[in-house]
Amino acid sequence: MKKYVIGVDIGGTKVATGIISIRDGKLKKKVVLPTHAKDGFEGSLEQVYESIGKVLQMSGTGKEHIEGIGVCAPGPLNPVKGIVHNPPNLPGWNEVPLASLIRKKFRIKTRLENDANAAGMAEVIWGAARGYKHVLYVTVSTGIGTAIIINGKVFHGKNGMAGEGGHMTINYDDKYGKCNCGNIGCIEALASGPYTIKRLRRKLEKNPGLKTNLIDMVDGRLNDLTMIVLSDAADEGDRLALETIAEEGRLIGIWLGSMINVLDPEIIVIGGGVSLMGDVLFKEIRKTIPTHSINIFADKTPVVQARLKRDVGIFGAASVLLKPSEIAALEKGKKRQK
Amino acid sequence: MKKYVIGVDIGGTKVATGIISIRDGKLKKKVVLPTHAKDGFEGSLEQVYESIGKVLQMSGTGKEHIEGIGVCAPGPLNPVKGIVHNPPNLPGWNEVPLASLIRKKFRIKTRLENDANAAGMAEVIWGAARGYKHVLYVTVSTGIGTAIIINGKVFHGKNGMAGEGGHMTINYDDKYGKCNCGNIGCIEALASGPYTIKRLRRKLEKNPGLKTNLIDMVDGRLNDLTMIVLSDAADEGDRLALETIAEEGRLIGIWLGSMINVLDPEIIVIGGGVSLMGDVLFKEIRKTIPTHSINIFADKTPVVQARLKRDVGIFGAASVLLKPSEIAALEKGKKRQK
Repeated sequence: MKKYVIGVDIGGTKVATGIISIRDGKLKKKVVLPTHAKDGFEGSLEQVYESIGKVLQMSGTGKEHIEGIGVCAPGPLNPVKGIVHNPPNLPGWNEVPLASLIRKKFRIKTRLENDANAAGMAEVIWGAARGYKHVLYVTVSTGIGTAIIINGKVFHGKNGMAGEGGHMTINYDDKYGKCNCGNIGCIEALASGPYTIKRLRRKLEKNPGLKTNLIDMVDGRLNDLTMIVLSDAADEGDRLALETIAEEGRLIGIWLGSMINVLDPEIIVIGGGVSLMGDVLFKEIRKTIPTHSINIFADKTPVVQARLKRDVGIFGAASVLLKPSEIAALEKGKKRQK
Repeated sequence: MKKYVIGVDIGGTKVATGIISIRDGKLKKKVVLPTHAKDGFEGSLEQVYESIGKVLQMSGTGKEHIEGIGVCAPGPLNPVKGIVHNPPNLPGWNEVPLASLIRKKFRIKTRLENDANAAGMAEVIWGAARGYKHVLYVTVSTGIGTAIIINGKVFHGKNGMAGEGGHMTINYDDKYGKCNCGNIGCIEALASGPYTIKRLRRKLEKNPGLKTNLIDMVDGRLNDLTMIVLSDAADEGDRLALETIAEEGRLIGIWLGSMINVLDPEIIVIGGGVSLMGDVLFKEIRKTIPTHSINIFADKTPVVQARLKRDVGIFGAASVLLKPSEIAALEKGKKRQK
């Protein structure tokens, strides 16, 4: 019986690769390298190869003990065919048969998953969604991604592209809501980190007299405003900062009301950098959902913060290789990897 | 082996009940009675009982040959528990354990499904979605309903309330978009029949000089405007009528772009009265979808008109009792029930 799975998390800035024990679900060794995304596809692929090679070497484990390599990357990609289409965050990648390239290089079974789906499965196995079968996982950071988990498995749809809930339109004629995807009024274009900051900056520029500490906190340089500054200001009770986060929560709540209408999940787990905003954000989300859903049980759907922080991508990628029985055993296990 | 299934379609105005042969999927006998919705729950239930009794009698079939009774009704309802919650179209119905009431009355296995889900399954077995496993069924008429079919089965979610896609918000701050469900900017509140007519009427009232035959067609009585009048005017080439239908198509296309982002279905089937508008509507829907979806295959997702017209509710309700093997056999069968 195989003892380990390898998880590779390819992001725009770094490649994080780890080896995980199937028996106890623990991360044994980990390597983080820069993605070298600017060097295009070949440069990044070299980094992926190197990280896998290093992890294998550090672990002292022979290939014969490895069940397989799970890789997650930003979409759009096709998990069934193992092909990365053309992610905005990985310039120069275009229809890359990543799974088969890695498989050939290491002669180990390799499978591909998109990063939101991988993180969602990690929360089901190791995190806040343990024990749930129908899960909506949401990640709010630079963008907004979702994973739809049905009967404990990621739902992929026809072309492996289901679960792009972050590009659901909630305001098709929002004049400031042009999204990176080309559409208008996607929730990503209204409530992701960068768009929240953009909206705030616009408000400050239009209303120079607004009473807030935010401007002093960036020495008057509005371009230096970030979600971290916003969060700090909110912690200090700055009213504009609190209002901005509450408005973000309201928009996410409107959107999740619709997602509940469509999917009626058992639980909603929210991860990603913005989810760390905590109570102000979550309170507003939970308050808004029931008033924007036809589902009479919407107010009973738990909306919780993701539990996994670091390494969620490695765990998620590795999970793609786990068998249902192995997943069930890990879900039941008492020890949780944080 | 059982030979027949009974399907009961409870609507706001009539109860249609039929008996269907499992072998060839054909409707053998049918009874249509008024729902007597104004008499409240008891009056309507009597009509349901009577229609089932009559169909049994007309068919000359003994109960021992009936696999079961499938019932569809307007939501919200819980198909798993067989309970009708409180449908706006069935006043006086409140947490009615309909499946168990009918089961006790006739001593025949009975199951409940919501009407959009039932119609969606009817299209999978007998209609435009034959041979497809991941299907989004949409019905556009007085309201907008959807059914999400995954692996050939209706997806119900946790509380049996998944698939309420008609209440997805596409414009949360639309000042005219107040929906019956209490939310704002649901696609139902923007593009269903009554809302399309409402918007058209507002336009005519605000712009008395508009060149159109619509006003003459209702003898100046704008309250007499209906989707049928609109359709007739469009057939005669009336520009305002054509624009109104195209705008409805555009809104539905924006919404379906988002639905494809979430579900990535193999096919979208559109039924309901408004779908009979035909080419003008479907062209606009198909044109709009790819420009409002991040799914790179969105333009390849077929968007087709439903095939079943009359009796779709009876077929859909009856389908709930069919076994997967019986469904597969009917799907393969050459003869199609129209």
